[in-house]
Amino acid sequence: MKKTNNSDKGILYVVSGPSGAGKSSIISMLLERCSSLEFSVSYTTRKRREGEQNGKDYFFVTKEEFEDMRRRGEFLEWAEVHGNFYGTSKRFVNEGLKEGKQLLLDIDVQGAMNVKKLFPEGIYIFITPPSLEALKARLIKRGTESDAQIARRLKDAKWELSHIKEFDYIVMNEDLDTAVEDIYIIVRAEGLKVHRNMDKIRKALGYDI
Amino acid sequence: MKKTNNSDKGILYVVSGPSGAGKSSIISMLLERCSSLEFSVSYTTRKRREGEQNGKDYFFVTKEEFEDMRRRGEFLEWAEVHGNFYGTSKRFVNEGLKEGKQLLLDIDVQGAMNVKKLFPEGIYIFITPPSLEALKARLIKRGTESDAQIARRLKDAKWELSHIKEFDYIVMNEDLDTAVEDIYIIVRAEGLKVHRNMDKIRKALGYDI
Repeated sequence: MKKTNNSDKGILYVVSGPSGAGKSSIISMLLERCSSLEFSVSYTTRKRREGEQNGKDYFFVTKEEFEDMRRRGEFLEWAEVHGNFYGTSKRFVNEGLKEGKQLLLDIDVQGAMNVKKLFPEGIYIFITPPSLEALKARLIKRGTESDAQIARRLKDAKWELSHIKEFDYIVMNEDLDTAVEDIYIIVRAEGLKVHRNMDKIRKALGYDI
Repeated sequence: MKKTNNSDKGILYVVSGPSGAGKSSIISMLLERCSSLEFSVSYTTRKRREGEQNGKDYFFVTKEEFEDMRRRGEFLEWAEVHGNFYGTSKRFVNEGLKEGKQLLLDIDVQGAMNVKKLFPEGIYIFITPPSLEALKARLIKRGTESDAQIARRLKDAKWELSHIKEFDYIVMNEDLDTAVEDIYIIVRAEGLKVHRNMDKIRKALGYDI
């Protein structure tokens, strides 16, 4: 008889938050530390920033390529953020979870909300800057956006922050190392949830419970 | 207007598991490491073991004293385990939570189930030995129980393990340091839950969300 438990299923971690909260740096350090996590590389039509690698940070595609994929139903979710398109591969997520992998998605708040409808059992982590002033300072420092774009991102950040209650965990990025450690701890704690360990428990005890 | 959130409420951690799983050692090390946790000292009628301190490990009381407290409704929960009585102070828990404290309760599985009915929002952690054989070996090594008592504890352990699904987290005590670290991690991760940080988030952002 097939057991009804989640032990053989993967875990979906969705990391989200306003642009400029420091998500990318946190995730890149986290992935180095936590080898059990597999990163879902998103497709995007936005321009590649310095230091970003195609296939590692994003799959950089044209608007036409993106539209073709969307039409073929290849995205789990897709969204337009600040005039650019972002999409998550349906196949990567579905197959990864079926294989029992721990997947990490870095998506915008809008996209995270869409994924939550499909995977309510996922773990939703919101990364926030310590304050809106700090966010503004970071966007200016990054130097990739115009003043108008920064104003738009700040307005969007307020909307994004208003959805924080729909997330499970909050990581306030005051200090990069602490923020990385926080997510690492969330991942380890989630791995200790009873429902994820039923197979292990049965095996250790030598009988079914 | 009063905000409806849990930020100003304490957190109740309930640690439970079969006798001999190593709960006491784990908790005593955890409390040293995690100064934010406050231990709820239970009342018991069982004999004091070597090294145990009255008022620190337990409040050791007579059967008559226990019965008086029980009759006066001073226990949040009480249970008879292996012929001894154990009770948790209602006042300590209720007042501690009201004051926003993080309380740690060490109670038997039966007691934990009763507390869960009263505090479904608590965090329930099950500490299990790596196997039933290991549990047996530990009980023999402890040398405080007769063969009949050990047989009874093993029988009870099977019943207790059958309730594991009603807990949130499992900590398998194969190695003491790892088990302590596991609970420490659970406590830190729980502290990152969004609903416990709404006040902090509002304060950092400077406006209500």
